Amino acid sequence: MEKFVIGIDYGTNTARAIIVNTANGDEIGTGIAPYPHGEDGIVLNSTDPNVARHHPHDYLLVTKLVVKQALKKASRFQDFNSNLIVGIGIDTTASTVLPLDINGVPLAFMDEYKNDIDTMAWLWKDHSSVQEAEEITQALKKKSPEALERIGGAYSSEWFWSKLLRFARIAPKAYEQTATWIEISDWFSGWLCGVSDPFKIARGICTAGHKGLYDSIGEGFPGEDVLMAIDPILVKIGDSLQGKVLPIGDALGRLAREPAEFLGLPKGIAVAVPEIDAHIGALGSGINRGRMVKILGTSGVDLVIATMENPVATIPGVSGVVPHSIMPDFLTIEAGQSALGDIYGWYVNRIAPQGGDHISLTNSDKKLKPGETGLLGLDWYNGNRTILTDQRLTGLLVGMNLQTKPEHIYRSLIEATAFGSKVIMNRFSEYGIKVNEIVASGGLPGKNSLVMQIFSDILERPLKIPKSEHTAALGAAIA
Amino acid sequence: MEKFVIGIDYGTNTARAIIVNTANGDEIGTGIAPYPHGEDGIVLNSTDPNVARHHPHDYLLVTKLVVKQALKKASRFQDFNSNLIVGIGIDTTASTVLPLDINGVPLAFMDEYKNDIDTMAWLWKDHSSVQEAEEITQALKKKSPEALERIGGAYSSEWFWSKLLRFARIAPKAYEQTATWIEISDWFSGWLCGVSDPFKIARGICTAGHKGLYDSIGEGFPGEDVLMAIDPILVKIGDSLQGKVLPIGDALGRLAREPAEFLGLPKGIAVAVPEIDAHIGALGSGINRGRMVKILGTSGVDLVIATMENPVATIPGVSGVVPHSIMPDFLTIEAGQSALGDIYGWYVNRIAPQGGDHISLTNSDKKLKPGETGLLGLDWYNGNRTILTDQRLTGLLVGMNLQTKPEHIYRSLIEATAFGSKVIMNRFSEYGIKVNEIVASGGLPGKNSLVMQIFSDILERPLKIPKSEHTAALGAAIA
Repeated sequence: MEKFVIGIDYGTNTARAIIVNTANGDEIGTGIAPYPHGEDGIVLNSTDPNVARHHPHDYLLVTKLVVKQALKKASRFQDFNSNLIVGIGIDTTASTVLPLDINGVPLAFMDEYKNDIDTMAWLWKDHSSVQEAEEITQALKKKSPEALERIGGAYSSEWFWSKLLRFARIAPKAYEQTATWIEISDWFSGWLCGVSDPFKIARGICTAGHKGLYDSIGEGFPGEDVLMAIDPILVKIGDSLQGKVLPIGDALGRLAREPAEFLGLPKGIAVAVPEIDAHIGALGSGINRGRMVKILGTSGVDLVIATMENPVATIPGVSGVVPHSIMPDFLTIEAGQSALGDIYGWYVNRIAPQGGDHISLTNSDKKLKPGETGLLGLDWYNGNRTILTDQRLTGLLVGMNLQTKPEHIYRSLIEATAFGSKVIMNRFSEYGIKVNEIVASGGLPGKNSLVMQIFSDILERPLKIPKSEHTAALGAAIA
Repeated sequence: MEKFVIGIDYGTNTARAIIVNTANGDEIGTGIAPYPHGEDGIVLNSTDPNVARHHPHDYLLVTKLVVKQALKKASRFQDFNSNLIVGIGIDTTASTVLPLDINGVPLAFMDEYKNDIDTMAWLWKDHSSVQEAEEITQALKKKSPEALERIGGAYSSEWFWSKLLRFARIAPKAYEQTATWIEISDWFSGWLCGVSDPFKIARGICTAGHKGLYDSIGEGFPGEDVLMAIDPILVKIGDSLQGKVLPIGDALGRLAREPAEFLGLPKGIAVAVPEIDAHIGALGSGINRGRMVKILGTSGVDLVIATMENPVATIPGVSGVVPHSIMPDFLTIEAGQSALGDIYGWYVNRIAPQGGDHISLTNSDKKLKPGETGLLGLDWYNGNRTILTDQRLTGLLVGMNLQTKPEHIYRSLIEATAFGSKVIMNRFSEYGIKVNEIVASGGLPGKNSLVMQIFSDILERPLKIPKSEHTAALGAAIA
């Protein structure tokens, strides 16, 4: 009998599931669904453009939908039935974090917080916590400079502790009822395993290491002295982080009865240690030594791996170097661009909607030679993650004249993102990590051949495309 | 019996005439008409965005139209009849220059050059001659540094000799048939006076001094040694400049029979020395000591006057200091911005036509506080005339993020032009020319109150609007 695994990928706007044959990697069933809440799944605050939230309840609803779709499609195969599924793995965006109460239940599920967006999950791209990130960076400089080095010299407003600190300050009543603060991947995997003790929930090493300041070699999560130096308010959550921190490839637990029935999956199958979407997508895209995986989506992520002996413990401006997080016994090194396709979308949808859509602008741009427009730009429209690690930075465009056309600006925005990417690749190279080939994953590569060509020209390497259309879900299934 | 004068203003896209009562300044008749050739009157070259030409024949046609309209309107007044008109004055854009043959006739009128845009008038904003301007600047550095100082340190591609040098090089056959090279204001005024000898046509001091390197105190137009140093090809035209160079307020001559009949005006009336539109518009706007006239149109011009004793013979980066050119016995100092309203138009028409029109964007912008958008720009979209004198410079915008809206960019473009203007005013001040009040003229002030307010805020002075809607034509009529 063949065996199957299911992987579920929770993105920014939609979730998708795939069912994979463990013998040959065939993807025999898929499902996709949008989150019900907010605008394209994101709950916004009209008075603060930095706010972006997910409702945790959406994760239950979309999971039911995408698993059902995937099972239905898979059931067309004679060799398949749902009892042959032996494991489930998930990945989510990160840091997408939320508060749990003493019963391990999201505060957002309580009636009294029904309309309180602060108890929802703070989506990765929520940038409310710039000030808090700065405070954490300053405290780490004094109390834990080695932790700061490990994450590239600055703690981001997108990460676990920045968002927690802001939540604790702006929602003191809810914070009082908060037992722990958790990555949504850990919460949801814990729910799949039936864990209800907020102090026992295991955490994936990928988020813990890349976002939560977890030191796998040293002392684990930041100790009381560090948290006191940032703000004593954080100590309570530091104390709550008592669950195991597990590497990729391990099982977090077994699928509990209630979620098994809810999803129509066999009870007791293995639940994988959860992962960050970008990272596990790299696994699904075939990351390897010398082969960088580049995720080209609304934002950009660059992932490389290196042996544990590689002298790359710290790379300035690079977000994280974490062991065992994509492949057991390898270091993962992550870098990225805070906005990428988002910039092209901003231009086409917000600024120049009559200047042409992505397709017509791309076709006009294909007639242009590199440099012909005379325009030069910086891609800091959502800050700069790597290598400057500063969310307050903004975009720049220079070289406009009265003959500048919409397609000129569009092309220069693509070029700006490609040069931003080159800065990252060069930084890897300076620290001994060679990139010989690039696999381009994410939403853009299949859609926009001009983006691919410009990136290839500027990075001076061929860009390959992975076979699977669902690399993150595939990676989760592999896990 | 009352007496009347007629003033005709030849702009970039249209021409207009007004008939004025000399006793009280009442404007009793107006006419306006577009140039028949090209796009909005401008003949373009699709393969070279720097090219912008006027067909000289358009000047005959529009003059007939606008004079006829003005006479018709004026004839509703009992006190008026066309025989009471005692003088005519004109102004044009500058340098707008063209070649004349040995009979004083534009080469563009000849059958063999019917479709040759190089024999047409090279419009002020034609920027084909950047390379030639640079050569002239370099030659002047060596041979005539004092002339270079007088024009602000660099010779512009918009001016008389740059355009001539390029014309001579790219159209050698036409250049062979060229007897003289002339500002269109001088050609047309000469035609009004019936002058047909290309070596006798008088030139207005305003264009000669501001654009043609004419030194009213020293040796007149550049001598053979200077022209040889630039390019010997120019000597022929240098030798042709034998007509008088006349100050404002003088009569160039008397209206000849043929043009008088063609236009329906009395033969023998005074024809004024012609003027540059911006300069004579300053007269029509009430320029005075301490009162700057600022022309806010497609481009921007700043004009101040100073007594002849004023120690301002040279101001770095300022285009020209010329005596007798707006008011007899005063120095005129001219500076400007190569693009102003053109930048707002570029954005609204070319880049973001669905982002809103000028009115809706302006209304959105009125709700914004200064600095609120976080955007900062440079207004060098058509190069920088003052104080950098470099046509190759280009625009810049910094501070964009994914929340940036079309109205934010629109406002920042206005602010960029206002700050560009402030740099000019500060340069005046550094050289002892105080600006206590500003009269804003041109197309924009009456149309866009936000532009007026932002300029007023940034320049820290009230902006007044002249009484007449036709300040250039009024100034020409006064002349």
